[in-house]
Amino acid sequence: MEHQTQQEPASPEVRARIQASFERQGLMGHLGARIVHIAPGRVHIALPSRPEVTQQHGYFHAGATSAIADSAGGYAAFTLFPEDTSVLTVEYKINLLAPAAGEHIEAVGTVLKSGRTLTVCQLEVFGVQDDRRTLVATGQQTLIRVNTSER
Amino acid sequence: MEHQTQQEPASPEVRARIQASFERQGLMGHLGARIVHIAPGRVHIALPSRPEVTQQHGYFHAGATSAIADSAGGYAAFTLFPEDTSVLTVEYKINLLAPAAGEHIEAVGTVLKSGRTLTVCQLEVFGVQDDRRTLVATGQQTLIRVNTSER
Amino acid sequence: MEHQTQQEPASPEVRARIQASFERQGLMGHLGARIVHIAPGRVHIALPSRPEVTQQHGYFHAGATSAIADSAGGYAAFTLFPEDTSVLTVEYKINLLAPAAGEHIEAVGTVLKSGRTLTVCQLEVFGVQDDRRTLVATGQQTLIRVNTSER
Amino acid sequence: MEHQTQQEPASPEVRARIQASFERQGLMGHLGARIVHIAPGRVHIALPSRPEVTQQHGYFHAGATSAIADSAGGYAAFTLFPEDTSVLTVEYKINLLAPAAGEHIEAVGTVLKSGRTLTVCQLEVFGVQDDRRTLVATGQQTLIRVNTSER
Repeated sequence: MEHQTQQEPASPEVRARIQASFERQGLMGHLGARIVHIAPGRVHIALPSRPEVTQQHGYFHAGATSAIADSAGGYAAFTLFPEDTSVLTVEYKINLLAPAAGEHIEAVGTVLKSGRTLTVCQLEVFGVQDDRRTLVATGQQTLIRVNTSER
Repeated sequence: MEHQTQQEPASPEVRARIQASFERQGLMGHLGARIVHIAPGRVHIALPSRPEVTQQHGYFHAGATSAIADSAGGYAAFTLFPEDTSVLTVEYKINLLAPAAGEHIEAVGTVLKSGRTLTVCQLEVFGVQDDRRTLVATGQQTLIRVNTSER
Repeated sequence: MEHQTQQEPASPEVRARIQASFERQGLMGHLGARIVHIAPGRVHIALPSRPEVTQQHGYFHAGATSAIADSAGGYAAFTLFPEDTSVLTVEYKINLLAPAAGEHIEAVGTVLKSGRTLTVCQLEVFGVQDDRRTLVATGQQTLIRVNTSER
Repeated sequence: MEHQTQQEPASPEVRARIQASFERQGLMGHLGARIVHIAPGRVHIALPSRPEVTQQHGYFHAGATSAIADSAGGYAAFTLFPEDTSVLTVEYKINLLAPAAGEHIEAVGTVLKSGRTLTVCQLEVFGVQDDRRTLVATGQQTLIRVNTSER
């Protein structure tokens, strides 16, 4: 098995498909998240700091951290799927390593294994302040491919 | 080990402490979540359906589902802690079992094991439509107790 | 969704199919584990205490605890599958709640959700001493059904 | 946060402490596992193929795969601890990515974050045949440090 991630950008068709799906995710817009990078097998999503995404101590809420991590992994998987398919999260596990602070946080979803039915992604979330990046969460996610015609 | 959950309601002091903390979680208010039940070792949080919490197919986003599950577990742990302590999520794992649909979803956090340092909670999320409850997610969470004076 | 677990015993055909598969698991025999209960959607596996299954402090090794938990969940899923299918573990997560001590430990795998492709099980492991049962580990497992003809 | 892993070998004192603990793990000897690399924040454990460690299809059993992954992570954490401490697994999650086949499997535990109380490790297991290494499992583990005097 090899990492499915290459450095070249995704094709315009894939980028457009992902951006369109992302814009239908009401939660991402409501939180203020945006996709900042799409490559085959890898997607980055950024979330700026603001009071609406905090927990009780003023850090990013684990729910916000997880939400963009989950979406980043889902779209990373989706970059490798054919048209007329969809992706659903089966499960994920996330460790919160440090208080999630910074001007924004950035989630990176990376495909570790892309199978016919199941895809496994690594999830990482960084707190970004000035140019310093701190790993604040790391996780692992399982996704399932669904043929749109079956939905 | 026994389930730390009893049926009697939590004390007014505990309820007030949890409600005050919850109101400082900007994310919960922004999503529209509210605490609907507080008992020793068990907290329920409800989230009404609206476009701001959806994924691309119109169901509740896994990130929203997870966010209220994480908070429900955290506050369930918190009901068993002394004053002058705080709780942080170490990690959690969640399986999305079915599309999260309904008028609202309700997360139930239940303490499975409350230790001196670590607490383990079960997380369940139900989709609620009319009076029908469907289990849409199930998870497991580890939390750590922090003395507020140490923070 | 309902728990797929009923109290009646599994059919003789199912029991025979599971026992035969279990006996092909070299690891289970090598550890000294045996199936002690098979019901639709639920399987129990017991592992007696002996030096060959310990960690450095003399308790059951987390690897032994996990091994029988994983098998118990896999066979619980398998009880609900048709013939000519097989089951593979996709992933699992386990919390070690207490030192695993006792005359034997007993893993209980219970199907939470049985889908066409994926099954989700709850895993519990108890330490048993005299008639006292202590929950020593709790987990959650995802499995995939494979048609034997596809293997 | 930086990866706590360096390339230099661990000190003789640390290596001796880990080897001694490993030899007290009855399960590791019973399975036939051995430590093959100890560096600060990283430990490798190998397990040769033989019928005693298989599942029903003749591959390495997920329980055997997990057992050496869990031990590799635990000892990786332990390399960074002071004397008179001990390490316990709090929880782990593992994805089985491919059938675990080969002359032997090798688990690599790597410390991602080493805190005062908790340590988080990445777990990887490779199937090794001739000189080809295939990633067969990937996981994430949380451990707690215990002062030996407290035990």
